[in-house]
Amino acid sequence: MTLSRLEQQIAFISEIDKLKTILRQTPLMDNSRRENSAEHSWHLAVMALTLAEYAEPGTDITRVVKMVLIHDIVEIDAGDTFAYDTQGYVDKADREELAAARIFGLLPDDIRDSIMALWREFEAIATPEARFANALDRLEPLIGNFAAGGGSWKKAGVNLPKVQKRMEPIGAVSPALGEYVQHIIAQAVERGYILES
Amino acid sequence: MTLSRLEQQIAFISEIDKLKTILRQTPLMDNSRRENSAEHSWHLAVMALTLAEYAEPGTDITRVVKMVLIHDIVEIDAGDTFAYDTQGYVDKADREELAAARIFGLLPDDIRDSIMALWREFEAIATPEARFANALDRLEPLIGNFAAGGGSWKKAGVNLPKVQKRMEPIGAVSPALGEYVQHIIAQAVERGYILES
Repeated sequence: MTLSRLEQQIAFISEIDKLKTILRQTPLMDNSRRENSAEHSWHLAVMALTLAEYAEPGTDITRVVKMVLIHDIVEIDAGDTFAYDTQGYVDKADREELAAARIFGLLPDDIRDSIMALWREFEAIATPEARFANALDRLEPLIGNFAAGGGSWKKAGVNLPKVQKRMEPIGAVSPALGEYVQHIIAQAVERGYILES
Repeated sequence: MTLSRLEQQIAFISEIDKLKTILRQTPLMDNSRRENSAEHSWHLAVMALTLAEYAEPGTDITRVVKMVLIHDIVEIDAGDTFAYDTQGYVDKADREELAAARIFGLLPDDIRDSIMALWREFEAIATPEARFANALDRLEPLIGNFAAGGGSWKKAGVNLPKVQKRMEPIGAVSPALGEYVQHIIAQAVERGYILES
């Protein structure tokens, strides 16, 4: 028996509930627990609406919002790869391709294709929308780690050159956001949240 | 000292992190814990993208997405009011108005005004966008409670007439979604998740 169109849509909606159980390395700002990828995606989407003016001219913010909403769904199968985990990045793309095929494949073909295209665009970081989405994805844990007193920087003993490299794309998209990032990083080093070298 | 525009935006982004700590009555679908309002908002936004075709003709889905993303932020101050809690609804509007003024008031005036307008539109349920957002807000816990083996229906001993009344607006927006809802409710009664009377 083939599933009806609505049954396929509900199957996808039910499956992605699991993103609420995928834990990231970054804590909540009150440091009470680790953040999950569903609430992280929500935060990025509201950030996109709030910080829209810092995107490159001509950026379609509604596409940025859609992109960040679906960007982490592949983690349901592939897991969250910590931003500073070099080893984890080796087969990240392969694991995530399989995950995308399975999870987005639950949807009717037309919706699957449009969400898949949006996800690939996010991954390629080659359009203004993807660059802004990517910048937000780096900015949110910076704000979170700083507020939580060091968070995943402190836990993993991440040093300044690594944080600088990770945050670089933010300034490339928006000098104003880049300046803010430098301001936070300087304070984080001063407070011992980030190792100097 | 007045805060710069970017400082105001970051203050808002930091404040709304608290939505991740506001717990709803509905459990995750795997029944492992209660859902929070941030991940719930994310789920509604992805549902809006996935179920767009069931909205009334002419509905602007990107406005629905924005609406569901910000619809629960007032709960940071006002708390989550359980859908079947008649007492809690008595002063819900007043509590939420104060919360909206404080939290959205952290933003620069222009962004505050547009988010406030979106939130008021959601609350008034008088446009196709607000009706669809409202329908999704009712549909998500139905799917969640059913998947989790009864969830907040069972815990609170909610009966069939109350669930029917709560779910009615879904069928008014979309007969197809309404039919699906009736199918789930019938099964939920059969399994003892919802009391018959």
